[in-house]
Amino acid sequence: MNKHIPQSDFKTPEVTTGPLPASRKVYVSGDIYKDIAVPVREIDLHSSAGEPPVPVYDTSGPYTDPAVTIDVEKGLARTRTAWIKERGHVEEYDGREVKPEDNGGASGKHLAREFPIRNRPLRGTGTGPVTQYEFAKAEIITKEMEFVAIRENLGRKQMLDGAEARVEQGESFGAEIPPFITPEFVRDEIARGRAIIPSNINHPEIEPQIIGRNFLVKINANIGNSAVASSVEEEVDKMVWATRWGADNVMDLSTGRNIHNTREWIIRNSPVPIGTVPIYQALEKVNGVAEDLTWEVYRDTLIEQAEQGVDYFTIHAGVRLPYIHLTADRVTGIVSRGGSIMAKWCLAHHRESFLYTNFAEICEIMRRYDVSFSLGDGLRPGSIADANDRAQFAELETLGELTKIAWDHGCQVMIEGPGHVPMHKIKVNMDKQLKTCGEAPFYTLGPLTTDIAPGYDHITSGIGAAMIGWFGTAMLCYVTPKEHLGLPDRDDVKVGVITYKLAAHAADLAKGHPAAQVRDDAVSRARFDFRWEDQFNLALDPETARDYHDQTLPKEAHKVAHFCSMCGPKFCSMKITAEVRDYAAGMSDNEKKDLEKLSQEGMKEMSEKYREMGSELYLEEQAVKKANEGL
Amino acid sequence: MNKHIPQSDFKTPEVTTGPLPASRKVYVSGDIYKDIAVPVREIDLHSSAGEPPVPVYDTSGPYTDPAVTIDVEKGLARTRTAWIKERGHVEEYDGREVKPEDNGGASGKHLAREFPIRNRPLRGTGTGPVTQYEFAKAEIITKEMEFVAIRENLGRKQMLDGAEARVEQGESFGAEIPPFITPEFVRDEIARGRAIIPSNINHPEIEPQIIGRNFLVKINANIGNSAVASSVEEEVDKMVWATRWGADNVMDLSTGRNIHNTREWIIRNSPVPIGTVPIYQALEKVNGVAEDLTWEVYRDTLIEQAEQGVDYFTIHAGVRLPYIHLTADRVTGIVSRGGSIMAKWCLAHHRESFLYTNFAEICEIMRRYDVSFSLGDGLRPGSIADANDRAQFAELETLGELTKIAWDHGCQVMIEGPGHVPMHKIKVNMDKQLKTCGEAPFYTLGPLTTDIAPGYDHITSGIGAAMIGWFGTAMLCYVTPKEHLGLPDRDDVKVGVITYKLAAHAADLAKGHPAAQVRDDAVSRARFDFRWEDQFNLALDPETARDYHDQTLPKEAHKVAHFCSMCGPKFCSMKITAEVRDYAAGMSDNEKKDLEKLSQEGMKEMSEKYREMGSELYLEEQAVKKANEGL
Repeated sequence: MNKHIPQSDFKTPEVTTGPLPASRKVYVSGDIYKDIAVPVREIDLHSSAGEPPVPVYDTSGPYTDPAVTIDVEKGLARTRTAWIKERGHVEEYDGREVKPEDNGGASGKHLAREFPIRNRPLRGTGTGPVTQYEFAKAEIITKEMEFVAIRENLGRKQMLDGAEARVEQGESFGAEIPPFITPEFVRDEIARGRAIIPSNINHPEIEPQIIGRNFLVKINANIGNSAVASSVEEEVDKMVWATRWGADNVMDLSTGRNIHNTREWIIRNSPVPIGTVPIYQALEKVNGVAEDLTWEVYRDTLIEQAEQGVDYFTIHAGVRLPYIHLTADRVTGIVSRGGSIMAKWCLAHHRESFLYTNFAEICEIMRRYDVSFSLGDGLRPGSIADANDRAQFAELETLGELTKIAWDHGCQVMIEGPGHVPMHKIKVNMDKQLKTCGEAPFYTLGPLTTDIAPGYDHITSGIGAAMIGWFGTAMLCYVTPKEHLGLPDRDDVKVGVITYKLAAHAADLAKGHPAAQVRDDAVSRARFDFRWEDQFNLALDPETARDYHDQTLPKEAHKVAHFCSMCGPKFCSMKITAEVRDYAAGMSDNEKKDLEKLSQEGMKEMSEKYREMGSELYLEEQAVKKANEGL
Repeated sequence: MNKHIPQSDFKTPEVTTGPLPASRKVYVSGDIYKDIAVPVREIDLHSSAGEPPVPVYDTSGPYTDPAVTIDVEKGLARTRTAWIKERGHVEEYDGREVKPEDNGGASGKHLAREFPIRNRPLRGTGTGPVTQYEFAKAEIITKEMEFVAIRENLGRKQMLDGAEARVEQGESFGAEIPPFITPEFVRDEIARGRAIIPSNINHPEIEPQIIGRNFLVKINANIGNSAVASSVEEEVDKMVWATRWGADNVMDLSTGRNIHNTREWIIRNSPVPIGTVPIYQALEKVNGVAEDLTWEVYRDTLIEQAEQGVDYFTIHAGVRLPYIHLTADRVTGIVSRGGSIMAKWCLAHHRESFLYTNFAEICEIMRRYDVSFSLGDGLRPGSIADANDRAQFAELETLGELTKIAWDHGCQVMIEGPGHVPMHKIKVNMDKQLKTCGEAPFYTLGPLTTDIAPGYDHITSGIGAAMIGWFGTAMLCYVTPKEHLGLPDRDDVKVGVITYKLAAHAADLAKGHPAAQVRDDAVSRARFDFRWEDQFNLALDPETARDYHDQTLPKEAHKVAHFCSMCGPKFCSMKITAEVRDYAAGMSDNEKKDLEKLSQEGMKEMSEKYREMGSELYLEEQAVKKANEGL
């Protein structure tokens, strides 16, 4: 890092804590495992709604639980350690020594402070199952599996009314979403390789979640410092901030110095799985010279990060020597950092990629810690012009081969996907991935559906993300407004997360996830009833919703006003509709039938009846008066 | 308006003028009509690109032409008046007197200042064709038709290389996009009712544009004051601002007082067609009491607005008495303002809608001025829960009937569509509309694909808009971040326009519009070459792109740096790719073939050759040095 932070100056990262508006965290225990505590956020509605709280998926960890004391210097509770140890087949050991090159040779005032507590790492002994995939194959339901089942049901202990109909009415393109998720369904999906629970045995702080086509669509937020910007404190804050708004996973893409120490602070404080691209750190260890990379440096980096608790590794093992020249005629060549590093290495040595040739050993390492594979798409298109070309699909074929090898070694696997793809070329990406990679979960970056809107690429990519999520992608990697332009700050992280959360939710709705529409319907009822506070509180981003409302109508009284600034008090379609509804509700079936037959003539009686029923509009004064009365 | 603006205090609206960065406005003359001047914006690239300027569609009118003196007190040049008069069959007449109720009875200090110049209106005499539809049916190519043909080709005088292939490679769901737009193609599409050129003969200030499935997807920006916020000056400024960023059409949805005077200022200064919902003003004339509306008040309002030059009217004639009770069980009832007003009127009088019963006379009025129909979807869904229900589709059937009646009367017609629709229910909307309404252009509001993200509804709807635009919607009505929350300000208008511009462009790309990808490819090449200035200038929003970049790397030298803040100077995938490309370009075909056969062994010679070619990376210092040398 270029920023100079001596140990003594290093401040404890300040993170955002406290519940979201009108929200309480509740914990649901398991049926198989009584001691698991699955977090659900319940949003309380105004008493006038007469509705129960709305349960929503909660990625924010203990930070939003007022009952938990947060101490970033200590990290989160290591709940899963007991789960892992009681299953056996793991051993605690001293672990690898931290070396100067792990932090890019930073020393003295340039070295970021170490995390204060050092835990001895665990690793599999090879005597029995360690990974979730291995347990699933052995027909064992782990605590993680029951945890995610409850979590996917949004706390439901039983099927929703109409859940089956919702699934049927959706269009899931061949996915098999059940109306209610059972632990056994989770186990089966993992055993089939169709879902993963990223959960390194050395990251016991996480609240497990599942990534797969038959589950809620997940999102990932990228954070990480670079050689020219950011600091450890900022990155820890961004991680907590991203999960507060809904990031299911976080990737630490740090480059430059202090990678090791930055990552330790992030992992120890993260309630969500952390992914990395180990080649970034390996490259720093050889001073940024790609051709100096060796299998030994890379292997050592994998172990270093596995011991720290990284939950998934992006491994660009599909960038093979014979594919590299296929990118030469592209408009934007190779845009993946990992892909371009490997391409450079392969050409410099004129050898097959060491990631490809050592893939079996990589599997062995990752299996011991249950690090999941995220097989990287190093040859993904970086422009509309390059979408779906030979290089891209050649790599995808290789990722399919590697998926099967990883499964054979007991590892969990997901597959990364593009990138920049125009709308009409998106679906073929999903179809090919499902076929080629045996339905292993797909994890895509967007895709961006046009190249002409830098500054708005969270939106150009949100369009593609919603679509590919609908088609079957299990996790969407966010894109922030700063994409192509700069490193995202805190505000950009939030905008990126909310954009992807809404894209993922749009996909869940379209796929027919049985519980997804509960929240939309609650917002819509609140909107119709002019329960402004409920509308804000149920929003993905209550703060922004409230702020936008208040810019035009800041008075507290307006929060209960039966109108809004778009139409004003005398002219409100919602209010008129309420009258129409009251009127229609008062009609008998025969009257309704007659209505269809009515001619234009006469009907003064009914007209008068309607007038008597009260066609007067609420005036602003009335609403304000009610507010003052404490309605 | 609640804001008090005495005549003496009324300021001349301040509007934004001047070209966009690196942009020049050029005018292309016609082949049939030499005197038409079709605007195209040309974006100049850095000399190092060795590329010609990139032509882009320009909606901004004379405001971005430094050669034109803008005087908002005089309005824009009335170029089309001569075109219309030379075609004949129109007469100039005194026009309707402005009445106090036209401005909501505002007087004294509450009355907004009148536009200083009064023009005598034109109307058709009934002796020959007046509307573009009538001319098209009579096989006459108007100046407007040649104008839009040139405009659609982005200034191309001939077909692009590969244009036919681009059209073929797109997926346009049965649209018939030609590789090159001819005036005769335009005429034929209008005669078939598949496209319209909104162009009231009393709005001669516009630069004509075409709305139809076989043309570039257009966008509309809504502006307008309400009873509780905004002023005339703000609305004129918003109109100019919206067109600066790409709004093809603007709807003035003003309510409250001063509607007439506000609209006059907007129309006289607008280079794009202006749409309105006349029932809003009619309601103000009866003091906001829907049941007091009469056909006479409405009819008078149509003539008032037609004489002013409104280019299209939203007419909710499909909200029929028998459909109203179908909305009673909805979660959000009737959310269209026009729809709810008519529903209330119908129920109060228990009579069929006067818009429906007087539809033929409405057609006669609109025909005389060539006001296009925008048949309103007053029963559109206002929530995911209500999408595609019986009420919505019953109304759509009626809009189909009315379309044919309007065509029989010589009118141009487009059809409005939803609203709130989950992704899997979008396409059926398009399919039904095409079938029911004889392929008349579809004009949708979004649709929003989820209800849970107030504050981000430009994005929830941008997803739906891109998709339905791809499926065949001809114009997308924008949604701003303030949707459901408040009245959009200037910043919101810009974000809404840019979001919809990118959604429309994503649709054009996917449909296979032959010239659409030219701009994406130019951005991508600029990105790959680290031509930062070109990347900003080619962006839909150059200001924001530049600002985001400068937040991390503000120094001017970085604008030519061969790296960016995401990776830093030593670690750049774009740079590595450039090396890979140089390498591959130096290989023979045999070498390429050998590459695929190469084993891991040996190859030291080639490896060394690569090293000799220079695998050293540019360092930051070198880039900065070059910048200082004026590279």
